[in-house]
Amino acid sequence: MTELAAVKAALKTQAVETPSWAYGNSGTRFKVFAQPGVPRSPREKLDDAAQVHAHTGAAPSVALHIPWDRVEDYAALAGYAEERGLRLGTINSNTFQDDDYKLGSVCHPDATVRRKALDHLFECVDIMDATGSKDLKLWFADGTNYPGQDDIRERQDRLAEALAQVYERLGDDQRMLLEYKFFEPAFYTTDVPDWGTAYAHCLKLGPKAQVVVDTGHHAPGTNIEFIVATLLRERKLGGFDFNSRFYADDDLMVGAADPFQLFRIMYEVIRGGGFAPDVAFMLDQCHNIEAKIPAIIRSVMNVQEATAKALLVDRDALAAAQREGDVLAANAVIMDAYNTDVRPLLREVREELGLDGDPVAAYHRSGWAGKIAAERVGGEQAGWGA
Amino acid sequence: MTELAAVKAALKTQAVETPSWAYGNSGTRFKVFAQPGVPRSPREKLDDAAQVHAHTGAAPSVALHIPWDRVEDYAALAGYAEERGLRLGTINSNTFQDDDYKLGSVCHPDATVRRKALDHLFECVDIMDATGSKDLKLWFADGTNYPGQDDIRERQDRLAEALAQVYERLGDDQRMLLEYKFFEPAFYTTDVPDWGTAYAHCLKLGPKAQVVVDTGHHAPGTNIEFIVATLLRERKLGGFDFNSRFYADDDLMVGAADPFQLFRIMYEVIRGGGFAPDVAFMLDQCHNIEAKIPAIIRSVMNVQEATAKALLVDRDALAAAQREGDVLAANAVIMDAYNTDVRPLLREVREELGLDGDPVAAYHRSGWAGKIAAERVGGEQAGWGA
Amino acid sequence: MTELAAVKAALKTQAVETPSWAYGNSGTRFKVFAQPGVPRSPREKLDDAAQVHAHTGAAPSVALHIPWDRVEDYAALAGYAEERGLRLGTINSNTFQDDDYKLGSVCHPDATVRRKALDHLFECVDIMDATGSKDLKLWFADGTNYPGQDDIRERQDRLAEALAQVYERLGDDQRMLLEYKFFEPAFYTTDVPDWGTAYAHCLKLGPKAQVVVDTGHHAPGTNIEFIVATLLRERKLGGFDFNSRFYADDDLMVGAADPFQLFRIMYEVIRGGGFAPDVAFMLDQCHNIEAKIPAIIRSVMNVQEATAKALLVDRDALAAAQREGDVLAANAVIMDAYNTDVRPLLREVREELGLDGDPVAAYHRSGWAGKIAAERVGGEQAGWGA
Amino acid sequence: MTELAAVKAALKTQAVETPSWAYGNSGTRFKVFAQPGVPRSPREKLDDAAQVHAHTGAAPSVALHIPWDRVEDYAALAGYAEERGLRLGTINSNTFQDDDYKLGSVCHPDATVRRKALDHLFECVDIMDATGSKDLKLWFADGTNYPGQDDIRERQDRLAEALAQVYERLGDDQRMLLEYKFFEPAFYTTDVPDWGTAYAHCLKLGPKAQVVVDTGHHAPGTNIEFIVATLLRERKLGGFDFNSRFYADDDLMVGAADPFQLFRIMYEVIRGGGFAPDVAFMLDQCHNIEAKIPAIIRSVMNVQEATAKALLVDRDALAAAQREGDVLAANAVIMDAYNTDVRPLLREVREELGLDGDPVAAYHRSGWAGKIAAERVGGEQAGWGA
Repeated sequence: MTELAAVKAALKTQAVETPSWAYGNSGTRFKVFAQPGVPRSPREKLDDAAQVHAHTGAAPSVALHIPWDRVEDYAALAGYAEERGLRLGTINSNTFQDDDYKLGSVCHPDATVRRKALDHLFECVDIMDATGSKDLKLWFADGTNYPGQDDIRERQDRLAEALAQVYERLGDDQRMLLEYKFFEPAFYTTDVPDWGTAYAHCLKLGPKAQVVVDTGHHAPGTNIEFIVATLLRERKLGGFDFNSRFYADDDLMVGAADPFQLFRIMYEVIRGGGFAPDVAFMLDQCHNIEAKIPAIIRSVMNVQEATAKALLVDRDALAAAQREGDVLAANAVIMDAYNTDVRPLLREVREELGLDGDPVAAYHRSGWAGKIAAERVGGEQAGWGA
Repeated sequence: MTELAAVKAALKTQAVETPSWAYGNSGTRFKVFAQPGVPRSPREKLDDAAQVHAHTGAAPSVALHIPWDRVEDYAALAGYAEERGLRLGTINSNTFQDDDYKLGSVCHPDATVRRKALDHLFECVDIMDATGSKDLKLWFADGTNYPGQDDIRERQDRLAEALAQVYERLGDDQRMLLEYKFFEPAFYTTDVPDWGTAYAHCLKLGPKAQVVVDTGHHAPGTNIEFIVATLLRERKLGGFDFNSRFYADDDLMVGAADPFQLFRIMYEVIRGGGFAPDVAFMLDQCHNIEAKIPAIIRSVMNVQEATAKALLVDRDALAAAQREGDVLAANAVIMDAYNTDVRPLLREVREELGLDGDPVAAYHRSGWAGKIAAERVGGEQAGWGA
Repeated sequence: MTELAAVKAALKTQAVETPSWAYGNSGTRFKVFAQPGVPRSPREKLDDAAQVHAHTGAAPSVALHIPWDRVEDYAALAGYAEERGLRLGTINSNTFQDDDYKLGSVCHPDATVRRKALDHLFECVDIMDATGSKDLKLWFADGTNYPGQDDIRERQDRLAEALAQVYERLGDDQRMLLEYKFFEPAFYTTDVPDWGTAYAHCLKLGPKAQVVVDTGHHAPGTNIEFIVATLLRERKLGGFDFNSRFYADDDLMVGAADPFQLFRIMYEVIRGGGFAPDVAFMLDQCHNIEAKIPAIIRSVMNVQEATAKALLVDRDALAAAQREGDVLAANAVIMDAYNTDVRPLLREVREELGLDGDPVAAYHRSGWAGKIAAERVGGEQAGWGA
Repeated sequence: MTELAAVKAALKTQAVETPSWAYGNSGTRFKVFAQPGVPRSPREKLDDAAQVHAHTGAAPSVALHIPWDRVEDYAALAGYAEERGLRLGTINSNTFQDDDYKLGSVCHPDATVRRKALDHLFECVDIMDATGSKDLKLWFADGTNYPGQDDIRERQDRLAEALAQVYERLGDDQRMLLEYKFFEPAFYTTDVPDWGTAYAHCLKLGPKAQVVVDTGHHAPGTNIEFIVATLLRERKLGGFDFNSRFYADDDLMVGAADPFQLFRIMYEVIRGGGFAPDVAFMLDQCHNIEAKIPAIIRSVMNVQEATAKALLVDRDALAAAQREGDVLAANAVIMDAYNTDVRPLLREVREELGLDGDPVAAYHRSGWAGKIAAERVGGEQAGWGA
């Protein structure tokens, strides 16, 4: 197989999981702008996700968020997905939207609230059993807004205890992915604010606990690819929540704010072993003002383009320049790959898979946007609140 | 008058305007936690504001937010305020919560939307006429989320045009206070992102256009007191929106995150001429998880404490050390004032005004919190949405 | 002329000024690593700059830094440059390296020091007269390290006074370019910390005073292209000091850290009127660990590539999408240009100019690096200190 | 013992180590301003350190930096210290000032350079044996400036290998303190950029490897007290390098930029067990423009003031408010302690120890500054370079 053929083959195996909530409405604390045609149920979200997969061939699974995607019969929902060429992916817990969680969930000072949060996490594991999902993604909004509000260390103790109990409940092929976030919604301390904290907890829990890197969850200037490389070296990288940001956790389309950074991240993934099954590529975005389905298609394409460029890095030339300490030559190898226009290559990949070379155009031609705008009238549009 | 007497006299004249919306519910994009006893109408907000003024003696006016505080009869509302020892203060416009404003208001590419926004601003001036408010505070959520989404320069042209029309409508003793904000809710460009942009517009508009400094609206590391000093030197500082932050626009209680910074800001205010009537001290905060009325009382007290310390700076000693280039001595003068415990002094000031020396304790003893929790049942609690 | 021909024609007119000091040694406060072959005199710097121009065809002028490039006979130096196909460009002042400047230069509390600094600035204007340089670039390291160290406002007064005197001395076709910087070497206040401060001073001075944007001199997250667009709209953009950074003022090769940002900046330049003669493109970089001449060649190429992409933006399609409020379509127009591989186009441009298509390779083949390493032995290598 | 007596007793036991290099000259990449009377030898640095201890009673040990403090006879140097009431403290390694280290030291791609760096670290352990120092502080300037310059993971492998070899050489009561730093002098990747990386390495090495928190080495907005609490909980906090900053690693006097943050850090130290012998309090500062000895005295006092306030926190009241979820009450407990003026208390503590209540004034009265300025003439002043 030629090198280019190998690159194409690799690209054909890459899968990006899309999040059910990105098909629903989202916004800022100032306003949620509704859009026409937004799904009103988990099934309608799957219908939209099927469009993304149909046009990209690279988005075969959909992450669920509990309770936003709570249904009576999860097996039926899994079947519904399967009929549309999809499978249900990661289960995302939510311990931040009940009034009880005002001061935290598993880190709350009150044991009753902690118990309630824990029960929700157990419910999520039950749902995984029903859907066949392999990964439980845990993001805790827990933290404090004011110095003194709660005891930093005791909150860590409570967190550790809850994680241990959930870990205990995991099946043999199930994993717990622990997400960290720099800040928001808590504004003074966050109980899992950085990769170090997530790593320390996962290390104690065991091999089924892994760290998730959300690309928008870091302090200004943080070198994310360094964290990716480090977690891969430690065998503790469970996956990504992809999105992009200029400021805080802006949740823009991945690759929109800093495509060079996305490329560098994907290079470290390839460098660290490629698309091992244990590194999940997930989107976690908010399409507040742009049309949601084509934005998700575009996001999948952006991940593919960054991946293609990362695969094109001449690793032998790079290693040689690095060995010689030739700073400019080594940098040039990286930049040569980055500066390559990989859109023709990805067009070929898609056409070889029987897809349209231009997924966005194909989606627009499909008439889906008009159809859902016309049909999905009445009812309550899905959003973060439900 | 002794020096301490002068400090006390100055403190007795300081007034901090509280914002009607801080008495209502607020939150993050993840969740708005409701609190018991929250007002359901502008009048109930004024009832709460009257509590803050009753216990601090320093919060005589209340800022309104249109449409959140829209009423049929503004003169009647002003009378209601007056009966409670208050007056209506700054009118705050809102051009970010209609669906039309998804891509902006006065900077929107569509002239129809711009016209609608402008009409709202005119309405705000009409309300000022009815309430006797002197200041119109303009904060625009306008901006873009993605590179290319709109033309940066044309948006400035549209902004300038709208501002000029509003300026034209102002009465002789009315002002326009233009607020800038680093980011949020827009995540790529913001149309008034920094003091320089606000200043440039105000300069062209004329003397009735002034810049507002919201202490939470800056890039990480920005030296806010430098901006304050500069705007005062340029006679373009219209006032403050006080709050505090560790990360982004966290809207925490002023003085909670960095009390030393607040002191430095107040020092520049004193240095720049003291409490001239043309620098408005306003709060703009969100009490998402803490009880609102005592948080606002505490915030007023924090401003007073920072002011007291700023007034205590030995300016002669400071000037002498600065002239001599004695870095440590000059810094020590500033730190001596900052390290002083001014709580006893403020207690005296309050008692001389016939108030309880401890406003928070007095509020808790008053039974107001229990009363409103019991009485304000049913109806819709005020919040950002209404 | 076809559109592509127009792009090529524009690229052929673009000139990037290289700074004499980038050919000398530089480093951090921890260490300056010397490199073989570094120039020991202004003439040797010009020899190296001639190499950059010979291979790129786009670097015809060289900025001088006084006193680092002080010579007895500036006319002779200008002649030396001319013989090598170069001309002397911007004169950069230095008021930060004498012991007298410990607490500032033109903002110093002591009038004697201010006078000394002012005399240096006058000397720089004299040198401009001798060299024919059109631009005086002013960067002041002035600021304070500790709260209280000096009076913020008085420092502005002193600054304004000095600038006015220098402005007075400028000839009819000479300009003063005022640079701002977020921080460093001062760590608490900086006397010209942001574009707003520089703009306010330049506005009062008059049309010959213009603002310089150094791309490394901003707070984290600052949207630089917004500033560029705003200054162009205000007719106050004098030029750029190009470099790139991940953290602070890292002074890395332009385009190395965030090539997408550089493209967006260049788009605003094109959008704002193209390569008007009054916007100077200058490099201001430190090649601490990489070979200097090829790093500068690479930097010139990076500016050209960003410019080429900016020129390729389909402005009609962009305007149409913006008018329609089609966020994704508008963003796609920008991304299509950015994702284009413009290296073949620039290769053609160079070949049409009679140059090698690959300037870095041509430089390496030239033997210059070996020659200067062999010949420039003994003497004192140029650096920031001399 | 009354509570206040306990606080005083605790304060009397607190010791802050001062760094030998803070007595020498330092600066920025732009300029090192020399000061009169600066030491020219390690012994003169100890003479100055003895002044700091004489006036504060709280600075009994001095950290050395190798090679800046290299002497022939370390036992003699230790004796010299002892005669002045001091002891030699932490040994700091330096692997960033030889030309060989341009691309790194223990992480360098070339094994020869790595070996050289390792030998230097072994030398430092030998010096510890000679001086009786217990701690080896390791800060590596290693990193890269450009994407692709070197392989992130291989550098971690090299680092791990070097650390393991040094660890092996430590005696039973010797420790290795690993310092992390966000950036500088490397501008793209830093090989130990955050506490997580330092923690992961120390965890594998064993109990004698501990993390050092330099308060100036974090990304903007990082919550340092959270890291302190976490490392104490993990029993991996080895000590502090105290200083303060507004922007990057400004190395200003500790407590000068954000005294409230210093207080919160000290609260977590007290909360986590108090002045256990295994948490070293060290200064690491640069007094670029201010007089060095009084700046160090002031820094020691700032640490003491923050500690006194932290000791005054009413922990029972705090715990009660936290348990009840009373955000404002809990925050008020913290702020009450912080707002207390502890200078009179510390004055008493000093007087009870037989010291002057005002160490800065006592130092100025001592005539030491005039004496060293007069006597230390000629020779080469100590600085970072020697």
